[in-house]
Amino acid sequence: MSARSRIPGAVIRRLPRYYRYLSTLHQLGIVRVSSRDMSKALGLTSSQIRQDFSNLGGLGLQGYGYDVDSLLKEIGIILGLDTMYNLIIIGAGNLGHALSNYQNFEKRGFRIIGVFDVDQRIIGKKVNGLTVMHMDELSEFLKENKADIAAITVPRTYAREVAEKVISLGIRGIWNFAPVELEFPDDIVVENIHLSDSLMVLGYNLKQEKKENRA
Amino acid sequence: MSARSRIPGAVIRRLPRYYRYLSTLHQLGIVRVSSRDMSKALGLTSSQIRQDFSNLGGLGLQGYGYDVDSLLKEIGIILGLDTMYNLIIIGAGNLGHALSNYQNFEKRGFRIIGVFDVDQRIIGKKVNGLTVMHMDELSEFLKENKADIAAITVPRTYAREVAEKVISLGIRGIWNFAPVELEFPDDIVVENIHLSDSLMVLGYNLKQEKKENRA
Repeated sequence: MSARSRIPGAVIRRLPRYYRYLSTLHQLGIVRVSSRDMSKALGLTSSQIRQDFSNLGGLGLQGYGYDVDSLLKEIGIILGLDTMYNLIIIGAGNLGHALSNYQNFEKRGFRIIGVFDVDQRIIGKKVNGLTVMHMDELSEFLKENKADIAAITVPRTYAREVAEKVISLGIRGIWNFAPVELEFPDDIVVENIHLSDSLMVLGYNLKQEKKENRA
Repeated sequence: MSARSRIPGAVIRRLPRYYRYLSTLHQLGIVRVSSRDMSKALGLTSSQIRQDFSNLGGLGLQGYGYDVDSLLKEIGIILGLDTMYNLIIIGAGNLGHALSNYQNFEKRGFRIIGVFDVDQRIIGKKVNGLTVMHMDELSEFLKENKADIAAITVPRTYAREVAEKVISLGIRGIWNFAPVELEFPDDIVVENIHLSDSLMVLGYNLKQEKKENRA
């Protein structure tokens, strides 16, 4: 196991943001950046940023800042952006449509190869160049096409059933958008987007902000 | 400032999950739950859970577990679920549609009161009972309707402009779905949903899982 595999989860979770920020700098021709400048732009403390980057092998030099290109390359390798993943979307409602139209994913190495639903009114229609298939076709489809990740955008009452189905068909990555906690075997990797949770945190912070302004 | 306002951000971020889990238990008639049972269901360690709850005033009794109803009530109060927030959606594309159809939000105290876009083909159409308005109408609308939060679901190149606009019109909460880092004044509360970031973390974890299986 390399040093890289021991990077803490919380650091990993911040890497995409660094990556996005550094990509923009790179496009603008910036070659060096200080942790202080990053701090302002990203809303993290300088020491947090320096600590995060020391986890990646300490690419910064005191007083000189970080080399944008090497940092960008290093983070890209850690995040595996050189790897291509195939993704299927289960649930071709508004959210499924939104995901399939997201052009950023392919740029980051995630290719959407199939969209599935059970609603006869949607099946056969095109979503971003892909024909929506019936869930009954999923098993056959996965025999001929390797998919790594299933995005689950079905109503919450079906989420568990759908997740179990795709896992039984060999998919190891679940991108869950349903507002439920799903239990999975240990070798299944799950990433949740819980929209209500995010909104509740926003509400909490708004309330705190108001309190502080009154104080 | 009360003890509550000093709950660390990382704990706050886990509270919605606890809330969701405890709500389900409550509906099932469960009155007590151990940190061990929660641990299994939520994929957090027991000690993490106990530590989190001690931040809320330590409602558990060694060996007896936690009282579901009091914990639920306490977390609801902290998260401000007794407060009603008004939300507008800027960008009536697929993602905007998906958000406006999300029934969970209103249950959690977030009411969608307006949907805005600049695309003439969408303006005037109904989205979940609300007529899509033109961005030019936003200023008038906000004079007559108090909105706390703007969900920004416009293409990334417009996100900054839209955010500045709604902030200039008095909105303090930004729920940003565009894959950009936006800089805001200190009194503005931002919550980002960066879909690509989440996908990158999923890709990273999949890769790690594969490595470990090979090892």
